[in-house]
Amino acid sequence: MRIMILGADGYLGWPTSVELALKNHNLLLIDNFIKRKLIKKYNRKVLVNTPRADKQLTKLKKYNKKIKFSNIDCTNYDSLSSSFKNFKPDAVIHFAEMPSAPLSMLGDSEGWMTLKNNLQSTYNLISIIKKYNSNCHIIKLGTMGEYGTPNIDIEEGWLNISHKKRTHKFLYPRQASSLYHTSKIMDTDLLWFYVRMSNLKVTDLMQGPVYGVNSSEIMKDACLQPLFTYDDIFGTVLNRFIVQGITNNPLTIYGSGSQIRGYINIKDTINCIMLSLKNPPKAGNLEIYNQFTEQFSINELANRVITALSKIGLDTKICKIKNPRIEKEKHYYNAKNSKLKKLGLKPTLLTENSIIEIANYVKKYKKNIDKSLFQPRIKW
Amino acid sequence: MRIMILGADGYLGWPTSVELALKNHNLLLIDNFIKRKLIKKYNRKVLVNTPRADKQLTKLKKYNKKIKFSNIDCTNYDSLSSSFKNFKPDAVIHFAEMPSAPLSMLGDSEGWMTLKNNLQSTYNLISIIKKYNSNCHIIKLGTMGEYGTPNIDIEEGWLNISHKKRTHKFLYPRQASSLYHTSKIMDTDLLWFYVRMSNLKVTDLMQGPVYGVNSSEIMKDACLQPLFTYDDIFGTVLNRFIVQGITNNPLTIYGSGSQIRGYINIKDTINCIMLSLKNPPKAGNLEIYNQFTEQFSINELANRVITALSKIGLDTKICKIKNPRIEKEKHYYNAKNSKLKKLGLKPTLLTENSIIEIANYVKKYKKNIDKSLFQPRIKW
Repeated sequence: MRIMILGADGYLGWPTSVELALKNHNLLLIDNFIKRKLIKKYNRKVLVNTPRADKQLTKLKKYNKKIKFSNIDCTNYDSLSSSFKNFKPDAVIHFAEMPSAPLSMLGDSEGWMTLKNNLQSTYNLISIIKKYNSNCHIIKLGTMGEYGTPNIDIEEGWLNISHKKRTHKFLYPRQASSLYHTSKIMDTDLLWFYVRMSNLKVTDLMQGPVYGVNSSEIMKDACLQPLFTYDDIFGTVLNRFIVQGITNNPLTIYGSGSQIRGYINIKDTINCIMLSLKNPPKAGNLEIYNQFTEQFSINELANRVITALSKIGLDTKICKIKNPRIEKEKHYYNAKNSKLKKLGLKPTLLTENSIIEIANYVKKYKKNIDKSLFQPRIKW
Repeated sequence: MRIMILGADGYLGWPTSVELALKNHNLLLIDNFIKRKLIKKYNRKVLVNTPRADKQLTKLKKYNKKIKFSNIDCTNYDSLSSSFKNFKPDAVIHFAEMPSAPLSMLGDSEGWMTLKNNLQSTYNLISIIKKYNSNCHIIKLGTMGEYGTPNIDIEEGWLNISHKKRTHKFLYPRQASSLYHTSKIMDTDLLWFYVRMSNLKVTDLMQGPVYGVNSSEIMKDACLQPLFTYDDIFGTVLNRFIVQGITNNPLTIYGSGSQIRGYINIKDTINCIMLSLKNPPKAGNLEIYNQFTEQFSINELANRVITALSKIGLDTKICKIKNPRIEKEKHYYNAKNSKLKKLGLKPTLLTENSIIEIANYVKKYKKNIDKSLFQPRIKW
């Protein structure tokens, strides 16, 4: 299969690229390294200073020669369009979005940067696909955060609504708790609009917060590792907890810790993308999957980390701080996630072993950890 | 009251400005004349070559000295921010959006221009208001087109959804039939997000297609007339029908003509804005009104025009053409519009007299009419 990966240098983009390379696909990797630039600009740090995707490519080419890389900003229509026309992909996996809720809430310019980058990259991709090959499958990373925390069950993408004895199937109504998440709602609106207008084939993945490190094959080679962050802007909560635990720091919980979300191991993220690639929707269809495997409250997450780390001799505490975010802390949460399992996903659960695996990885780079990055410095 | 009007040079912005001037408010009018530039760029024409708002101002100042004008692009944060800080408005009425569905569907660049202009002007306004005076009331023009044509009743902005014995009040789920209308959905998402995060006071007006010319006081003075369009890009359907009838051309109906929408006379648009100004929501509330007075199918509209024009001696025909748009032609449509009436709106109905009033206005400028602008030239 010929696959373009937009945002191939990221925490998800890179391991997905590696996995697709190992499966012998013909790949065009795209990135402009904006995430690395932002990490530097805002004085955050990664756990391991991995080489950029274009440098890692030489290593990856040992396994598969059919991989190219282009340094392209996906908000640039002409560059993206030329690449698409030349490469002629069967599918495009779109990770090329600003991934941080706190960054989107930092200031007016960061907010607009997030909104513009995410919408323009998605708009450009749609425009190019409908112009040159509307049969090309778009796989887009959305987020479970689009749904927010409604008082009813979160269904998978759609909701049949009965009202005054009539019914209609709508996109599940959404309200997010950061501008970043709101930009993803807008992406979904845009994709759904053009699916209807131009008969596109789109899979929109509503992904929960991701944790972990990728598969063993990649782990063997230090050069093929992902961008692992644990800071307040780019880090995800479970990774940060493990980094805090490894350095004998308390796990920082925002507010009461009763906020519930659906989580996913990065290994399953990759599996879900593979399943999406294998199961493109029919033309004129927007397929939406809720891409998480288990739901936990922050307190449950913290307790699981504490128990697992105790097995490797660490005594970890919890520290509750004032919630820096505006979000409901006590709320109903029951999200469905059966579609990907029906396609064959075997969830990687958050067991003691899976936490210890991540902890052992983090331990190897303990000397790199900057503890000053744990505390949230962006409030809203 | 101190009121800023963004997009003061438009079909709605200008008459609203005039009406507020006559009511002796302290006004800052803002426009960058992009609509006039686009009308020229795409070779469309207005019915009357009215002077730009900044030129018309001298005339308006006879009635009210407390009016200023600034030539500002609302997508420019710094300019808009300086104006806001200097003027210190109590309310901002935001008309500064690309208003055309066909333009948004013309090509990739027009689509992105629409999306970017509309979202960035709204984002800038929100950012400025939350920074300098979150007590300032935002009145924003949305569109009934955000709702699309669902198979259930269209409520006013919100929907209480019951699902598996639980309930939640959501923004009414929306799906539009052009990119322009989709950009308005995104505006609503953005406003609702910041109302929750920053306790803003926002009124979002879901307006139906507008027709007509404004109140008699303005009509007396040729210099105080609005931008009246009847072409395929900027014109609204009822105005176009009347212009077609006056020039003895058939009324062009797209498809079967059974598409139903809620319509509003421009006099009521102005009344609704006055009512919104008088009734700001409490902090942290997004008030949504469905701003239309009557719903008709296109066929009903055409028949009413034909009957009215026959009273002034015109024999008008209908010409059905292939629908240039992707939209449902046969559909359920039952939209609510009780909130503004509860606030005191006395609807101006689409009577023979109201059609004849518009027809007489159009007749005065019959020699200006360019018949080549009637046919739709943008397809999707």
